[in-house]
Formats: sequence, C-alpha cells, structure tokens
Amino acid sequence: MKTLADAFEHTLQDVYYAEQAIVKALPKMAKAADAADLKTAFEDHLAETKEQIAILRKVFRSAGLEAKGEKCDAIEGLIKEGEGVIEEAEGVALDAALIGVGQAVEHYEIARYGTLKEWARVLGHDEAAAMLGEILDMEKAANNKLTGLAVQEINKASAAKIVGSKVARA
Amino acid sequence: MKTLADAFEHTLQDVYYAEQAIVKALPKMAKAADAADLKTAFEDHLAETKEQIAILRKVFRSAGLEAKGEKCDAIEGLIKEGEGVIEEAEGVALDAALIGVGQAVEHYEIARYGTLKEWARVLGHDEAAAMLGEILDMEKAANNKLTGLAVQEINKASAAKIVGSKVARA
Repeated sequence: MKTLADAFEHTLQDVYYAEQAIVKALPKMAKAADAADLKTAFEDHLAETKEQIAILRKVFRSAGLEAKGEKCDAIEGLIKEGEGVIEEAEGVALDAALIGVGQAVEHYEIARYGTLKEWARVLGHDEAAAMLGEILDMEKAANNKLTGLAVQEINKASAAKIVGSKVARA
Repeated sequence: MKTLADAFEHTLQDVYYAEQAIVKALPKMAKAADAADLKTAFEDHLAETKEQIAILRKVFRSAGLEAKGEKCDAIEGLIKEGEGVIEEAEGVALDAALIGVGQAVEHYEIARYGTLKEWARVLGHDEAAAMLGEILDMEKAANNKLTGLAVQEINKASAAKIVGSKVARA
C-alpha cells in the first residue's frame, strides 16, 4: 500500500471479507439468543448484511476495482469473542453479552465505513462515497436498535432476575 | 457467566486487558506515523490510556471486584490489523491507514464502555457507571480528534500526492 487509492482498495477488501464472515456468524448468534426480540434483531441484520454485500459489489465496480475479500484480523477477533460468549455465557448473561458483542461488531463497521466513505470522497469516487454512506447509516441504525433492545428490555430483565423479581421475558 | 454481574465483571476484565495491550501498541503506531500531528495524537492517547487504566482500577474497586485482565480476542485482532498496516503500508497510505485502524480501536472501546456504563447503572454501581462514562467521553473525544486529523490534514495530503500536487506535510 503506497497511495490513498491502495489503502481504499485494501480496506474495501477487508470489509467485504468482514461482511461475509458476519453472514456466517449471525445465524449462530440468533440461534443462541434467548429473547425473541434479540433473535429477530440478529435475523433482520443478517438480511441487511446480505444487502450490504450486494452494495459493496457495486462500490468496487463504481471505483473500477475487482470485488474480492481479504482476510481481516479485526473481524476474526470480534467473531471469536462472540463465539466465546456463546460457549461461556448462559441465562440472562448470554443475551446481555450477545448484544454487547453485536454492538462491538457494529462499531467496528461504523469506524471502517466512516473511513472508507471519506477516502472515496477525497479520491473523487462520489458514487462509491454515497453508497458507503448508505451502508454506514444502516450500521448506525442497527447499532441504535441494539442499544434500544439492551436498555429497554434485556438489561432490565437481567437485573430483575438478579434481585429475584419476576422476569418479564418471552 | 450466568448473571448480568458476571457479564459486567468479564467485560471489565476484557477492557482492562485491552487497554494494557493498547499501551504496548501505541508507541509502535507513533513511531511508524510520518506526520508530526499524528505522532503527537498517538503519544497523547498513550498518556490518556494509562490514565484510563488507573480509572479502571477504581471501577473494579468501586464494584467490589478484583482488578485483573482477561485475554480479549477482539483487541488482539484489532492490534494485529494495526501491525499489518505498519508492515504493508508506506508513504501517504501509511498515515491514512494508521488513522483508520486507530479509529477502529476507538470505536471498539466506545462500544464496550457504552455497554459497561449501562450495565453498571442497571446493577446499581452508580460510582462505577460515572467513571465508565468518563472513560467513554475520553474515547469519543480521541476518536473525534482522529477524524479531524484525517479530514483536515492527512487525507488531503494523501490526495494531493496522488494528483501530483505539492504535499503540504511536515
């Protein structure tokens, strides 16, 4: 990598790989989740992630690049963290920890798409920048959805369990 | 991990490990950075990270827990990504890519401290929640600083190099 164009191509390949890794990880997270709303949130985000992969192919094309993935160490680590949660957590801790890992993944993507959108703009790939901005907005919305679910439902249910009250969960 | 308290303790140990890993990684990033402002940003964040580790010790104490770290796969992956950038990138791509990785690390921390602060609040650890909120604000400010540096200086310099103009860099 010598130029900003090289960094753009390399990082685009990183996120293309990352989204495909997320497509494989989300069904496991949905299966492990206990609360129905959390299962649905992961399933919805799976459909959205597939849509994002299709948009990324257009981004590659629009910037005159070949769509290909390159192993991304960061997403491998994040997914390993998620697998650790599925193995080690149970009960109310599992759903709370799954949301936490889900939000860490969303934040990773928010960081990368923020960078990629800005690089595309600087490089004059305006169409690609707009599409990357579209994915960025989807990731931010997905993260906000998980925050809402954690604050309004999962954490409360977990805390209720701790103090021995009735747990208002499906 | 069975309760929200378990998830809180486990994730606190994760970030305690992560901050210590970041303390080891930042000097390498500062050394690799070419632009003087970026070197300074990484050095400043190193001092800030050491301060955060001291605050984390108070968080453990405040929540009645022993301060200890636990291997965190996510930060290992993020740091590996940074090492890859230092190995593979050079010239203008290096600074741009270093900021990108730095922001991915910041976003990881923003996600984790956001979750921890909320869990502390739900668990009734109000003092710990306030301290976690303090660290969260520091991470957000560090991320915004990197965005400003990228948008106002580094990316412009990188783009200028591409179109063959003079590069306004120190």
